[in-house]
Amino acid sequence: MRIPKSKIKNPKSKIGKAPLLVIGSVAFDSIKTPHGKAEKILGGSATYFSLAASWFVPVQVVAVVGEDFGEEHRRLLQDRGVDTAGLERVPGKTFYWSGEYVGDMNEARTLETQLNVFEKFSPTIPASYLASEFVFLGNIDPVLQLHVRRQLPKARLAGLDSMNYWIKGKPEDLKRALAEVDVLLVNETEARMLSGLSNLKKAAEVIRKMGPRTLVIKRGEHGVMLFAKDGIFSAPAFPLDEVHDPTGAGDSFAGGFMGHLARAGDFSPSQLRRAVIYGSVMASYAVEEFGVARLLRLTPKEIEARYDEFKKLTHFDA
Amino acid sequence: MRIPKSKIKNPKSKIGKAPLLVIGSVAFDSIKTPHGKAEKILGGSATYFSLAASWFVPVQVVAVVGEDFGEEHRRLLQDRGVDTAGLERVPGKTFYWSGEYVGDMNEARTLETQLNVFEKFSPTIPASYLASEFVFLGNIDPVLQLHVRRQLPKARLAGLDSMNYWIKGKPEDLKRALAEVDVLLVNETEARMLSGLSNLKKAAEVIRKMGPRTLVIKRGEHGVMLFAKDGIFSAPAFPLDEVHDPTGAGDSFAGGFMGHLARAGDFSPSQLRRAVIYGSVMASYAVEEFGVARLLRLTPKEIEARYDEFKKLTHFDA
Repeated sequence: MRIPKSKIKNPKSKIGKAPLLVIGSVAFDSIKTPHGKAEKILGGSATYFSLAASWFVPVQVVAVVGEDFGEEHRRLLQDRGVDTAGLERVPGKTFYWSGEYVGDMNEARTLETQLNVFEKFSPTIPASYLASEFVFLGNIDPVLQLHVRRQLPKARLAGLDSMNYWIKGKPEDLKRALAEVDVLLVNETEARMLSGLSNLKKAAEVIRKMGPRTLVIKRGEHGVMLFAKDGIFSAPAFPLDEVHDPTGAGDSFAGGFMGHLARAGDFSPSQLRRAVIYGSVMASYAVEEFGVARLLRLTPKEIEARYDEFKKLTHFDA
Repeated sequence: MRIPKSKIKNPKSKIGKAPLLVIGSVAFDSIKTPHGKAEKILGGSATYFSLAASWFVPVQVVAVVGEDFGEEHRRLLQDRGVDTAGLERVPGKTFYWSGEYVGDMNEARTLETQLNVFEKFSPTIPASYLASEFVFLGNIDPVLQLHVRRQLPKARLAGLDSMNYWIKGKPEDLKRALAEVDVLLVNETEARMLSGLSNLKKAAEVIRKMGPRTLVIKRGEHGVMLFAKDGIFSAPAFPLDEVHDPTGAGDSFAGGFMGHLARAGDFSPSQLRRAVIYGSVMASYAVEEFGVARLLRLTPKEIEARYDEFKKLTHFDA
């Protein structure tokens, strides 16, 4: 039965049609926080991104996994509307990361990293993905990011994530990739390192001249700053009673941010600001439980409810 | 000539009538930052507070100074509408502080502190101040804060500032003072120390049960959180191209915050949120120049303009 439009309580919470492609890592994580620990649970930037974005649009994932990646893991993604045609399974073991959060949990202490099959990751874009208009280049070698970007000439919006390791290690390659994307998402330290400037407003000016006309600076528990053509937008993080596991917060933010824009199909200043809030909503839910558990059992109603709470959290009268 | 009300372009920018009393320190500061240095300039918490608040209401100051405090310094305050009847001049030298800011300038490194006449500060409230309905107990010994609070039975709104030194050194006296105030302003570290909890939301619940129904947590370049009866309000700091001298930012915030509330005469949730923004406006101007220079040459129009910019900085569509 087709439900008449007037009966749909919240049309905003509908899933869009245009797919969003993400390339990044799929991993197994072992995580310890003051609230508990988890062994070898599904993680990786592309996983968090895909599951967060899946509440907004269909997602196409490009990543590599090993033989320890089972059908149950693939099904977990597929059940959330993630197309896994680009999730290549090769001999060897999946990328493994083990880390610990202490004190205020603002930073992870890496205990172990096994790149495994990720070390030789050479992304292949399935033919069915080549018409994608929305793409997110997760935090991988900028040479690969650019390689993927160039295979997607129809992309109307390309986002990119990077980190200290590439900013220091492959600055020229990163700059070439930056020249061909629309949005860059980094944290405060990375923005300062990339621009060579400590003042964030000045750093943003420099970075936006490198290519991405929109810059998102993630500040963890201090929220997010957006630098775009209409000026600066500043949003707080959602105050939570307890953060159980900060892993994937940034990737979940990116998933909500890009997911909203792909669903809206419009990158106006007003939609970019909304996207920051949807990103913050997804990040705030992600950290409520270990791994991706909370992202799996969300509801559109919960997403909209927290969006409204962000409105209440930041509102003041003129 | 009396200007008809309809001709006043911005009635919000008018100075209120009810005086706001502040007790705190008046000092001479020597300051070094990456942008320059200044020797023995007028400072102290009560000075920054008074000058910031003076743009909203008449201010009454209670503090002690030494013989090196000249008529020119007193006149500087009086010219901004600050009543200095409670500014006692005694034999000896004025409180002196010397400090340096490096790197991101988030914290001052104290080079020298000479308490001088401040060491024996025993505040006397002039008779002309005793009917004050608005009072701010600046960061001094909590025993003195309570002593002053009790001499002002007509106070409808009492704010209090404190610091690590008193939280650790005189916890019981501080709790007695907190039980008799409406608003507490502290920074993140102090809120955690006072409550014994690292999660700010939980810390706020504990602190609000100690007395102050309104809690303001100052987070420097990361903005301000307000915990009040309508829930949490989170406001960013104003992104500046350059911070010349962070000294007095917190006291200027408090001056704008309390000043707006005294002018409004109403402490509703909506006015408390507005007060946070006015406080943030005053702090953002204060740090643009060394010492109190920028607070002296402000205009009501500039204050309103930056308030509007805060609206633009934080606005997103529902």
